Amino acid sequence: MKLYDCTRAPNPRRVRIFMAEKNLDIPKQEVDLAKGEHLSDAYRAINPECAVPVLELDDGTTISEVLAICTYLESMAPEPLLFGKSAEERAQVLMWNSRLEYNGLAGVAEYVRNTLPGFKDRAISGTHNYAQIPELAERGKHRSTAYFDRLDQHLEGRDFIALDAFSIADITAMVVIDFARWLKLDLTDGNPNLQRWYQSVSTRPSAKA
Amino acid sequence: MKLYDCTRAPNPRRVRIFMAEKNLDIPKQEVDLAKGEHLSDAYRAINPECAVPVLELDDGTTISEVLAICTYLESMAPEPLLFGKSAEERAQVLMWNSRLEYNGLAGVAEYVRNTLPGFKDRAISGTHNYAQIPELAERGKHRSTAYFDRLDQHLEGRDFIALDAFSIADITAMVVIDFARWLKLDLTDGNPNLQRWYQSVSTRPSAKA
Repeated sequence: MKLYDCTRAPNPRRVRIFMAEKNLDIPKQEVDLAKGEHLSDAYRAINPECAVPVLELDDGTTISEVLAICTYLESMAPEPLLFGKSAEERAQVLMWNSRLEYNGLAGVAEYVRNTLPGFKDRAISGTHNYAQIPELAERGKHRSTAYFDRLDQHLEGRDFIALDAFSIADITAMVVIDFARWLKLDLTDGNPNLQRWYQSVSTRPSAKA
Repeated sequence: MKLYDCTRAPNPRRVRIFMAEKNLDIPKQEVDLAKGEHLSDAYRAINPECAVPVLELDDGTTISEVLAICTYLESMAPEPLLFGKSAEERAQVLMWNSRLEYNGLAGVAEYVRNTLPGFKDRAISGTHNYAQIPELAERGKHRSTAYFDRLDQHLEGRDFIALDAFSIADITAMVVIDFARWLKLDLTDGNPNLQRWYQSVSTRPSAKA
C-alpha cells in the first residue's frame, strides 16, 4: 500500500492521524500541490479529481476521499475502532463527521482559499482554476466560527465529540482548528469546552502526524 | 422510527430512494422549509444544524446527515446492499459518493441557491441566513457541469457508477441531476453514457420516492 500525501494539507493529515492511532506504517509519497503536481497527467491517472490523499492498494486499486480511505483502513486494522462499535455508534460518528466537514472544514477552506495570495485562482480544490471570491471568504469565516460555537455547547461535560471514545470526528475537528490557524483564526477562542477538548486531543501522539 | 422529511428537497429524497430500494416503510413527517419550520426552536431540538433529513429512532435518538442515516439503515436492513459487499467495494462506493457530494451536489446547490429568488438570503442551508453571491452561482454551475462531463467518461461501458450493482452513489447522482432541473440545467446533455445510465436508474420504482 502507498499513501499519496501532502504534508501541509488538512485532508491528508486526517488520514495520517487515523493511521497513527492504529499504528499503521504505510509508505507515503509527497505530492507537491504548490507546484501543481496534482494537476499533472500522471497524477490525474491516479485521481482524476486532482486531490490528495489517495490510498493505492497493492493490486493497483486507488481509493480517494478521506472517508473512503479511513473506512477501508478501519476494516483492515480495526483496533482501535475509530468509527464506533455498533450501528448506533457508527451513525453518531458519521453524523458528527459530516457536520464537521460541511460547516467546519468547508467553511475554513472557503475562508483560507479565498483569502491567501497563494490560492489565487485556486479558490476551490480540484481540477479547475476558479478565482477567489472575497464575499465567500467572509462567509466561510462566519460559518465555521458559528459552527464551532455550537460545538462548544455540545462538548459541555463530554470528553469526545461523537462517542465516549476518540473517533474520526475528533480527528476532523482537530484538523479543522489547526487549518484555521493558517489565517490566525482561533476557533476555540471564547469556547471553554472546546479548549479543554482541544488541549486533550492535540496532545495525543497521533496529533503530530 | 420516523423520518423528518421534505418532499421537494434533494437530501431527504436520497434517503427516501434508499429506503424504497430496501422496501422499508418508515413513517415520515414533513418539515416545511419554505415556511422556515427547520429554523424553529422545536426543530432545533431535533437537529441543531436545522437541516433535513433526520431519522428518529424509537428510543428518541436522532440521526442527521444522509450518509449517517443510510449507513444505519444498511445495518438494520442489509438487503439489497447499497454500500457494497466487501471492504474494497465499500471504499469504491464511499469514494464515488463523496465525489458526487463535493462537486455534484455542492455545485448544483451553489447554482440553485445563489440564483432562485426563493433562496434570497438562504444561499446555503443551515442555521444562518447568508446573502446570495452571483459569482458563486456561476462557479457552481461550471463545477457541476464539468464534474458530470468527467462522470460520463467513467460510465463508458458501465451500468452503475461505483460497482457492478446499484449503490448509494447512483442514488446521489440521480438526485443531483434532478436537482439541477430546478434551473432547467440538464447535466446529461452531450453525455451519452450518462444519458444511458440515467434512463436506466430513473425508471427503477424507487426513483419515484
